[in-house]
Amino acid sequence: MKSFFSFCLILFSALSITAQSNHTQDSLEIRSIYDMSLLNGKSYEWLDYLSNEIGGRLSGSYEAQQAVEYTKSELEKLGLDKVWLQPVMVPKWTRGEREFAYIQTGPGETRNVNITALGGSVATPAGGTKAKVIEVQSLEQLKEYGREGIEGKIVFYNRPMRADLIHTFEAYGGCVDQRYLGAQEAAKYGAVGVIVRSMNLRMDDYPHTGSMSYGELPVNKRIPAAAISTNDAKYLSGLLKIQKDLELYFKMNCEQHEDVQSYNVIGEITGSTYPDEIMVVGGHLDSWDLGDGSHDDGAGVVQSMEVLRLFKELNYKPKRTIRVVLFMNEENGLRGGTKYAEVAKNKNENHVFGLESDSGGFTPRGFSIDANDSQFAQILSWQKLFKPYLIHYFEKGGSGADIGPLKDNNIVLAGLRPDSQRYFDYHHAANDTFDKVNKRELELGAATMASLMYLVDQHGLKTVNTENTSLPD
Amino acid sequence: MKSFFSFCLILFSALSITAQSNHTQDSLEIRSIYDMSLLNGKSYEWLDYLSNEIGGRLSGSYEAQQAVEYTKSELEKLGLDKVWLQPVMVPKWTRGEREFAYIQTGPGETRNVNITALGGSVATPAGGTKAKVIEVQSLEQLKEYGREGIEGKIVFYNRPMRADLIHTFEAYGGCVDQRYLGAQEAAKYGAVGVIVRSMNLRMDDYPHTGSMSYGELPVNKRIPAAAISTNDAKYLSGLLKIQKDLELYFKMNCEQHEDVQSYNVIGEITGSTYPDEIMVVGGHLDSWDLGDGSHDDGAGVVQSMEVLRLFKELNYKPKRTIRVVLFMNEENGLRGGTKYAEVAKNKNENHVFGLESDSGGFTPRGFSIDANDSQFAQILSWQKLFKPYLIHYFEKGGSGADIGPLKDNNIVLAGLRPDSQRYFDYHHAANDTFDKVNKRELELGAATMASLMYLVDQHGLKTVNTENTSLPD
Repeated sequence: MKSFFSFCLILFSALSITAQSNHTQDSLEIRSIYDMSLLNGKSYEWLDYLSNEIGGRLSGSYEAQQAVEYTKSELEKLGLDKVWLQPVMVPKWTRGEREFAYIQTGPGETRNVNITALGGSVATPAGGTKAKVIEVQSLEQLKEYGREGIEGKIVFYNRPMRADLIHTFEAYGGCVDQRYLGAQEAAKYGAVGVIVRSMNLRMDDYPHTGSMSYGELPVNKRIPAAAISTNDAKYLSGLLKIQKDLELYFKMNCEQHEDVQSYNVIGEITGSTYPDEIMVVGGHLDSWDLGDGSHDDGAGVVQSMEVLRLFKELNYKPKRTIRVVLFMNEENGLRGGTKYAEVAKNKNENHVFGLESDSGGFTPRGFSIDANDSQFAQILSWQKLFKPYLIHYFEKGGSGADIGPLKDNNIVLAGLRPDSQRYFDYHHAANDTFDKVNKRELELGAATMASLMYLVDQHGLKTVNTENTSLPD
Repeated sequence: MKSFFSFCLILFSALSITAQSNHTQDSLEIRSIYDMSLLNGKSYEWLDYLSNEIGGRLSGSYEAQQAVEYTKSELEKLGLDKVWLQPVMVPKWTRGEREFAYIQTGPGETRNVNITALGGSVATPAGGTKAKVIEVQSLEQLKEYGREGIEGKIVFYNRPMRADLIHTFEAYGGCVDQRYLGAQEAAKYGAVGVIVRSMNLRMDDYPHTGSMSYGELPVNKRIPAAAISTNDAKYLSGLLKIQKDLELYFKMNCEQHEDVQSYNVIGEITGSTYPDEIMVVGGHLDSWDLGDGSHDDGAGVVQSMEVLRLFKELNYKPKRTIRVVLFMNEENGLRGGTKYAEVAKNKNENHVFGLESDSGGFTPRGFSIDANDSQFAQILSWQKLFKPYLIHYFEKGGSGADIGPLKDNNIVLAGLRPDSQRYFDYHHAANDTFDKVNKRELELGAATMASLMYLVDQHGLKTVNTENTSLPD
């Protein structure tokens, strides 16, 4: 018994030393990843090109195609094992001539307001739309007014993002129904147009676009929908209190075209030991057209490319296959993410991990993780390795839109969580531009992503825990 | 025995319930502090005035005096128990006409470079200083060149901030000897001037000023010292490699005047239970003159004022006396901080806690804390209360320059630690302006400070632990 005990003690010590030495090795590897990203990073230079030489990259545009070609050619320079384009048909919506809007403040008196068409909106009639305005705070409130209160009017959705929520994405989630569903709901009551307060926590003059849906609404029932800047939303709301009969005029020239050919851009380092276990890291290549899409999601694109470049530069040979996927059409269709998952399924590929960066290029704080309890516990055991880099946020939660379609019982999905306080100042607006990105913050994000990819590659992730297998995930 | 055990169990449960209910009460109070700061904060409006209506507030300037009057009058509106000015004599240094510098790149060929006088520097001779340049990476390197290598030349200190350090203040600390001591050391070898690479992690065109000292150097031995922008430091260094004999010209018109009268601005809520236990929260009212001092340290000023305003708004009546102290002359003398501690000592005041915000108005991450082990452990026990606000950094370390002179064996000192990645892009430069401050980030910082002040006030801090009392602290 005593000898068995001694044996156990020795075994335990040996395991403990191994764990310790693994930990030290991981710690050194992660330090070298951060050093390389901060001292000799490439992400900022790539983003400069993507933002300043190409610019806004709306699906189906010439800019989106340029972005495909540029990132493919940059990935080809990295010495990866494979780089390819994955064809995907994408919707093409164009804004046309810039929108114009004013409030009729009195006879012969108008005040211009800043609006932008929501992505997917129909145009106004050629002469524009002019009507009285009814302000609501929610979709539900439409019922209160009913058809008689709404018919022939423009519905103005004015529920602001909640400033008291620390996670600004939560505040966004609490408002975005107005933008996405506002037109289809208001149309049911005979509204002639929709104006939505921009999803922006700050008071400023930038209208913020974003996707919307008409659902099953027949084409002839569709009404034009625009976002209005927070400053002008405040003005309009204030004026409505003393001048209920004021009219708003807006003119938009957007158009939905036939779907066009586009591509996901994919690069791969094939795994040395488990080539069939695939780990994906990605962001989306398309952006809205108003700014240059630096934070949304140029940052995620270049950070994902940087993960593979760092591994090559550091001569790290992953055990598992590591793919960077630059998804097309996240903003208004998710066709790229859907297509990637569809092809993966058809080829019976085994995806074990997905990591997405699509929350801006700000200082990284950690990850939200979509995993079962044992997998999550394993990731939490790595948390201390991130402490020197001030990475502290490891919480269960959503990952990212583009990797979402990969979800099954086995894969672990994660999203990089940067500081979110400034994100909605720029999100989907004309001020989402390169100068809003700080080089160090961007590089820290890339290194943080590469470090998690490294750890998953080195140690793998436990497969499903039995208690969860019977539940649909 | 059994009954004693039962008794202990009951006692333990009772204590545990009390602790639990304290925790819940604290948690609710902190939530209300954050809500008030984010939904109905005043810090951003104050900062707007301080930055845009007053501007850069160098000690002894008209702007500094305006800042004293403005903040005093704003504190008076809050209904505090006392508001007063504490007189302090401060140094007065003026920049004079803007600096001018060029590199003689060839016969009749020059290239202007961006420089700014270091605070406290003497002027160049009226016609400027023109001399050959010797580049060094450290003070120690002066020895290598000796008097024969340096005499009659301009010493160019070009050691950059280390980009691989995650804590940018650490990178700053590793460079700032060049700025602070560079002139006094180079003068000993007969240099005629000093040019220091700006303490800036980014490549740009802004020179960053900051304090310097001539130490014991007699007045007639003092040489002019300037900072050069990172872009121009790179250019100069590159050119020196191929053109060792190039000359640099610079002209500066700065002047040191007699000390002038100024003030610390102080406001107080007198404690209801322990009025003699004083807790200080503060930032510094003066700033450099190039920008408007929004991050350094307008942010700390308005956040400190906001702490007291939040307590008043929330009708929170502190047990201990809570003082906001807006210190004068942190940048080039620390006279305000020194005076405050001196008066406190003379009056035999019992200061139990000091909190300073002087690291920019960015998203708060936590605190560095100067305390003994038991006090630190107590603060760590509150860490979970901050988790919903993403406040995770609680480390032993320095607190702040202005509260530093209060240090004794009893007081606990702390510094707010905001995200530091962008701070040195703006620090002491012309681009430290209001537009670089995000409203939410500023407000989150104020709420984080108020929450810690609240906890210390509610629960007190353990006095010195015995093992440390014999050691000088």
